[in-house]
Amino acid sequence: MNYQLVTYCIPVAGVIALVFAMVRARWVNRQDPGTDAMIEIAGAISRGARAFLRREYRVLGFFVLAVAVLLFFVNWQERTLDGEVVNSPMVAISFLVGALCSGLAGFIGMQVATRANVRTTHAARKGLAPALNVAFSGGLVMGLSVVGLGILGLGSLFLIYDNLTDWSPTRVVNVIASFSLGASSIALFARVGGGIYTKAADVGADLAGKVYAGIPEDDPRNPATIADNVGDNVGDVAGMGADLFESYVGSIIGTMVLGTGFLAAFDGMDLPTGMLSPVLLPLVLAGAGILVSVAGSFLVHTREGGSPQKALNLGEFGASAIMAVVAFFVIRWMLPESWSATTPIVGSFSYTSLGVFWAVLIGLASGVFIGLSTEYFTSTHTPPTLEIARQSVTGPATNIISGLGVGMYSTGIPALILAGAIIGAHACAGLYGVAIAAVGMLSVTGIQLAVDAYGPISDNAGGIAEMAKLPPEVRARTDKLDAVGNTTAAIGKGFAIGSAALTALALFAAFMQQAGMETINVAAPHILAGLLLGAALPYVFSAMAMAAVGRASSDMINEVGRQFNEIPGLREGTASAEYARCVDISTAAAIREMIAPGLLALVVPVVIGFISKDMLGGLLAGVTVSGVLFAIFQSNAGGAWDNAKKRIETGMSIDGKVLGKGTEAHKAAVAGDTVGDPFKDTSGPSLNILIKLIAVVALVIAPLIA
Amino acid sequence: MNYQLVTYCIPVAGVIALVFAMVRARWVNRQDPGTDAMIEIAGAISRGARAFLRREYRVLGFFVLAVAVLLFFVNWQERTLDGEVVNSPMVAISFLVGALCSGLAGFIGMQVATRANVRTTHAARKGLAPALNVAFSGGLVMGLSVVGLGILGLGSLFLIYDNLTDWSPTRVVNVIASFSLGASSIALFARVGGGIYTKAADVGADLAGKVYAGIPEDDPRNPATIADNVGDNVGDVAGMGADLFESYVGSIIGTMVLGTGFLAAFDGMDLPTGMLSPVLLPLVLAGAGILVSVAGSFLVHTREGGSPQKALNLGEFGASAIMAVVAFFVIRWMLPESWSATTPIVGSFSYTSLGVFWAVLIGLASGVFIGLSTEYFTSTHTPPTLEIARQSVTGPATNIISGLGVGMYSTGIPALILAGAIIGAHACAGLYGVAIAAVGMLSVTGIQLAVDAYGPISDNAGGIAEMAKLPPEVRARTDKLDAVGNTTAAIGKGFAIGSAALTALALFAAFMQQAGMETINVAAPHILAGLLLGAALPYVFSAMAMAAVGRASSDMINEVGRQFNEIPGLREGTASAEYARCVDISTAAAIREMIAPGLLALVVPVVIGFISKDMLGGLLAGVTVSGVLFAIFQSNAGGAWDNAKKRIETGMSIDGKVLGKGTEAHKAAVAGDTVGDPFKDTSGPSLNILIKLIAVVALVIAPLIA
Repeated sequence: MNYQLVTYCIPVAGVIALVFAMVRARWVNRQDPGTDAMIEIAGAISRGARAFLRREYRVLGFFVLAVAVLLFFVNWQERTLDGEVVNSPMVAISFLVGALCSGLAGFIGMQVATRANVRTTHAARKGLAPALNVAFSGGLVMGLSVVGLGILGLGSLFLIYDNLTDWSPTRVVNVIASFSLGASSIALFARVGGGIYTKAADVGADLAGKVYAGIPEDDPRNPATIADNVGDNVGDVAGMGADLFESYVGSIIGTMVLGTGFLAAFDGMDLPTGMLSPVLLPLVLAGAGILVSVAGSFLVHTREGGSPQKALNLGEFGASAIMAVVAFFVIRWMLPESWSATTPIVGSFSYTSLGVFWAVLIGLASGVFIGLSTEYFTSTHTPPTLEIARQSVTGPATNIISGLGVGMYSTGIPALILAGAIIGAHACAGLYGVAIAAVGMLSVTGIQLAVDAYGPISDNAGGIAEMAKLPPEVRARTDKLDAVGNTTAAIGKGFAIGSAALTALALFAAFMQQAGMETINVAAPHILAGLLLGAALPYVFSAMAMAAVGRASSDMINEVGRQFNEIPGLREGTASAEYARCVDISTAAAIREMIAPGLLALVVPVVIGFISKDMLGGLLAGVTVSGVLFAIFQSNAGGAWDNAKKRIETGMSIDGKVLGKGTEAHKAAVAGDTVGDPFKDTSGPSLNILIKLIAVVALVIAPLIA
Repeated sequence: MNYQLVTYCIPVAGVIALVFAMVRARWVNRQDPGTDAMIEIAGAISRGARAFLRREYRVLGFFVLAVAVLLFFVNWQERTLDGEVVNSPMVAISFLVGALCSGLAGFIGMQVATRANVRTTHAARKGLAPALNVAFSGGLVMGLSVVGLGILGLGSLFLIYDNLTDWSPTRVVNVIASFSLGASSIALFARVGGGIYTKAADVGADLAGKVYAGIPEDDPRNPATIADNVGDNVGDVAGMGADLFESYVGSIIGTMVLGTGFLAAFDGMDLPTGMLSPVLLPLVLAGAGILVSVAGSFLVHTREGGSPQKALNLGEFGASAIMAVVAFFVIRWMLPESWSATTPIVGSFSYTSLGVFWAVLIGLASGVFIGLSTEYFTSTHTPPTLEIARQSVTGPATNIISGLGVGMYSTGIPALILAGAIIGAHACAGLYGVAIAAVGMLSVTGIQLAVDAYGPISDNAGGIAEMAKLPPEVRARTDKLDAVGNTTAAIGKGFAIGSAALTALALFAAFMQQAGMETINVAAPHILAGLLLGAALPYVFSAMAMAAVGRASSDMINEVGRQFNEIPGLREGTASAEYARCVDISTAAAIREMIAPGLLALVVPVVIGFISKDMLGGLLAGVTVSGVLFAIFQSNAGGAWDNAKKRIETGMSIDGKVLGKGTEAHKAAVAGDTVGDPFKDTSGPSLNILIKLIAVVALVIAPLIA
């Protein structure tokens, strides 16, 4: 079999995903959007979300062009490593394509989500099952777009560079690597900007309503309410999509780079995909994962009265199980039973195809286990949130102490799982094993992301039901979907962090190989200093994000106050609020505030790298371990506060007492939830990107500093 | 000059410190303790503190004996490294002496603090200057006892082992190392136990007063009020003392171990202290520092109407300046102008005595700068606390988001300072330079700790003035002393963290040398796993401490409720509260709750070490960087919340408005302060010990796992 046939098949898998996504998107579009009031509200949300993305992409457009020009000229001069040319000005093209694919994935996801939300509301008027179907379909379009664009972009670049140039495979892979940089840059700004937007609007709407008018946050009289709903789409949907796009692409590229270390060992082997097998394996696995995700999506349906949670679990875990089987056959087909290779970092090592398969399984399994651990610490039904709810009785301070404690505790188990995964995957197949474990974890991203994005769509659907004053049973159905969405969101967040960690490690290993480093000795002073500075970065970065949310929500509160003062009849509900002004304010604030943390993440590794590549190695290790833990701490504390509040609101018994809305305990729980908002939706998830971005910047500049 | 003369002089410096401390303690005792009411209150505090220490030491006694027996038998068999015996069952003796000295230092400090507090109150009836004098004298007794016992213990052990055995210097130093383990174990339990005690009592007294009776926390009718005051002594005085005792001793031992790497290079050199010069240098510098601290203490006095802050600064910075000059001459006297040595980790390196001096200066300066950075982020007069105060207007949630942000930001500058110090000190004198920088930073611990301990004494003095219903001008004077104490406490905390970081690095380097490791490559999977697990430890450890405070303060709240229900007339002030029961509850809770985090810190490095010494190396690096940053984050967030509250309480203008007590903003600020309490007084400072203890455990087990 000609290996080129395989290289053609890879982008085709991407195309299949996109076609399937388009079919589903059209199906969603054909659903009835409901009453005029519903259409109007949904229209306002959709316009706001598009306005934000337009403005965001305009700013990012300049940035991307500037970096592309820089990459072009910096790579003008050919650089050699071990006597082989490794760069080309074409890295600018890879970068541009990466940025474009990432941006497009975010746009498509957001577009379908703002159509699916109102249609989910309308479907919920008929029943739970149709509503689940619409919401999940919306999510699936997002999920398949992300993986489809990822594989299409990477696969096409590989095909083009490999066919049209006489470059060595190492050079091809190196030049492709900046695809990941493009994706990461967009992802960082999308996650940070979206996170600031959504929480500025959320905190602003909530506090402004309280401070000025005693009006709840999703009351149509609250001028910030549309901005709040827009935020769910640009933050939770587009932000999460960009995050996983980056992990997906990063893990594949990291593995490809490490795969080039086996070229000599594979030379002359009789394999269907030739000597490039270890380089192509991650692409093929990802391509197979797309088909598995599509298959898994058919497992998600429920009858009226059935459990949406079970339906989603069946899709997700079913897809993982199928993937494990498929991965076994793919690996057996592509790799020889065993081979030996000497790579710069690991040294001489005996690899087996079975070992690689075990590494993939370890990746798949650790993703699931980190998700389950996240669920335990943040679910409404488990002891940690019970403890927080209990501590709410004595006021906001004890509620918050307790939530911070839960967040801190919750880092322990994921740290053990990740440590075990690193050691296990490495024992199975060296650093290549660690990287391929990340690919394994992310291979079913298509359906994983569908289940994630389903959450904010349901959340939005509930908001629309409230604003359009639909009957309570509709809201009850969307609430049921939303509650399931909270759990899937928690699992998804754990998964995002776990995959970010493994991806960062894959990129880290790839960086070391490309920079010609065999060891990063933390006993060396500049490496230790790098480690310390790297570990401090997540703190400073989070602080910037939190401060940005604070400033942006202040702007929002002031604007709401202005409207209540200046628009006669707004308070009484006889005049309409100027929603668009609030949308503007969130948009302007998010775009203004995303710049500084974004530049921090881009500039620091470059500066440190040119001071010393060893120090950059220390920085990478520091930012990865510190960032992963700080992200888990923040995300889980935030999730636990949120569900402790829900626990009180939904009237679950706490030590035999039912507290409920309006009690002092509930007020304390609301304070905790507000603290948790920027934790879990702005600074926490942004750290995923931070660690991957810094690793990929290092990888891209590696040939320059080697 | 015979080097033995110097070895005799070292313990003599310790004796001088102790004699001087005794003279000052007797002077404090001779001061008038005031009215009968004051004597009664002070007596209750003193009894409570002693009761706590007695029970704590009983538990620790068993623990220390058990570990000593274990160390004795584990080291029964002689172990060789490079053909040289490096251990001896006598490590058990070093361990016992270390534990004893640490415990004794805590006891003396606590004893004098509980006498100085009431005498400070009485002196404040006359004026500010005499009150400052009493409070500072109390602190000085503590400071000099710590350094005196440290040097006396270490110096005597060295003298005894060196004179009475035929051991090689390497073996002598190795056997002494477990002195530090003894000190660390006691310090950990003292810091954690004391921290839990003080915050359980503080949070409990505060919330119980509010929940049950609307009675302020320092009202005599509040049954938890004595426990609260006891807490200041056992937590802030004894805990801080044990912490710095450990840093002091650890940095000296780390440097001595690294100094043994130069034995071959120094063999036959014509130096006053012979080939042992680099081993003895840290001891001699510390001894000189004692004399400098004593000299500096005479600089601390103020006239009536003068500024206590200036007086304390003069003492502290004056002592640092003198120390710099003294260090120059000591180093010139003890070390040759230059030498070359090949040590296992650093390899071949050219050292100079001037380089060693610069390293000491770098240590001294970074301590000061970290302190100043801490002051900026936590002082009542600086922008960060203004921002928190401003965010208090919109409620507890925004206050807390803002405080968490300040804490996160505040890690950046200390990380840069420490990174610079590591690189700078290493460039000056290799790893020995990093270790001696820690000794430099800690050389004036005597006066540094005096200034630290002065704070809680003044705080207690104010509490006694309130409870004894003294006239408002007395309280005004103690408040003025206390406000200065908050700043010195902040600087002291920064100093404690910075010195802990450098000490941990010194011990880390010493561990690597003793375990025969040249490199700790973070690209190796088990080292990376160790790094990750190490980085997670501070989170889990902090979570345990926070949860312990939560449980203990619940116990306290329930007990206060019981007393208000069962004691007729308590609410009206006609019956007396059962203070002793509350003291008992805090004591029991602190002792029960300190066990689990303490064992975590001791067991994890041993288990990991026996799995793989490389993984232990990764663990050390991870726990050090993560712990330092997490400690700074927690301590500074806590300090900033506290002073943001003070800013509102003292009527400082915020954006042109004066908020003051009783406003909603003040309530929000109180919530923030309560969250900050366990952050800054329990979990945050305990991390200092955690990182040092894990490093010293590694050092002590190094010969076993080498």
